[in-house]
Amino acid sequence: MDTRDRYVHTAIVLLREGGYARAGINEIVASSGAPKGSLYHHFPGGKQQIVREALDAYTRAVGEYAARALAGATTPAGRVRALFAAVAHRLEASGFRSSCAAGAVALDLDADLEAVRGAVHAFFAAWVALVAPHFPLGDPARAASFAGLLLTAIEGGYVRGRAEHSTRALDEAAEWLATIAERECTPRPARGSQTRTRKR
Amino acid sequence: MDTRDRYVHTAIVLLREGGYARAGINEIVASSGAPKGSLYHHFPGGKQQIVREALDAYTRAVGEYAARALAGATTPAGRVRALFAAVAHRLEASGFRSSCAAGAVALDLDADLEAVRGAVHAFFAAWVALVAPHFPLGDPARAASFAGLLLTAIEGGYVRGRAEHSTRALDEAAEWLATIAERECTPRPARGSQTRTRKR
Repeated sequence: MDTRDRYVHTAIVLLREGGYARAGINEIVASSGAPKGSLYHHFPGGKQQIVREALDAYTRAVGEYAARALAGATTPAGRVRALFAAVAHRLEASGFRSSCAAGAVALDLDADLEAVRGAVHAFFAAWVALVAPHFPLGDPARAASFAGLLLTAIEGGYVRGRAEHSTRALDEAAEWLATIAERECTPRPARGSQTRTRKR
Repeated sequence: MDTRDRYVHTAIVLLREGGYARAGINEIVASSGAPKGSLYHHFPGGKQQIVREALDAYTRAVGEYAARALAGATTPAGRVRALFAAVAHRLEASGFRSSCAAGAVALDLDADLEAVRGAVHAFFAAWVALVAPHFPLGDPARAASFAGLLLTAIEGGYVRGRAEHSTRALDEAAEWLATIAERECTPRPARGSQTRTRKR
């Protein structure tokens, strides 16, 4: 990993732990072990630039692990469970100290951080665009809405998990939302003959 | 409002904007307009003490507005929509700059803040305990699980809303979850005769 990548990687770690406030220039330099002068050489825009680039890199990394989780499941309900299980694993592996970089930054945004806000928004949009096609819900807008619901519950599951030191909020959300996926995505009989055959 | 209450109120405002990192002693003193010496007089435990007390007061305030929202609706689906609408209103009224104090603190917790973490956890538990009885889902554990899902989606909706400058994530989650409430809470016919009569 070269110096520039090391800075970006370090920034991601700090953002996941404590959002924008945690990822100070001094903290990034200290944690990465590189000389301070070289940070401004690589990121002349300072903290906002490195945070934006870290969120872009984080978007790609999350996209990769979400795609792997989706690829390992064969049904819509299984895909919901696989996504939430991947998130729960990451949360637990961090000792409940680290969550979503975009989520943590979202909750300490202020009016001076429009460019950073754009990078957080782009993370959410990219996630929904990646996940939606895996849920055949009749039309793309409805699939995007459902993928958005999954994302909303994941972000909230991280929030609760950090405080509860538990993956329970994620696990419970996964079960309720898998039930929606199972019911709504399954190919349906012709209209007028819809009989409910399974229950949560 | 006396000086002590003013400090607590100010701390809540700052926590909602930016979590634990935002609610520094200097910021609380500056925003409240009270003399610094009196903060340590009222809160000898300093920042951790005032943040814990602010989270306790916030828990009571949110409980009151959630109870009002629930009381204004007559069906389970209506209660889901009323809760999310109340949250969306608060988010929008702040210009998308302020969200849940507990959620924002959760995402910048570190290992030194066990007492603060307890106050955040207590907020979540109190919310679930307040909301669950309004959803007749057959047994209390299932009602608590559903109330937990609502809370998870609200926390995630705040996260997305702050970055997206929109209540859309909350609005969409409300519709999906109202559908669950409508389907699952409605008194059911006897087993064996469950025919699905309404669709989202």
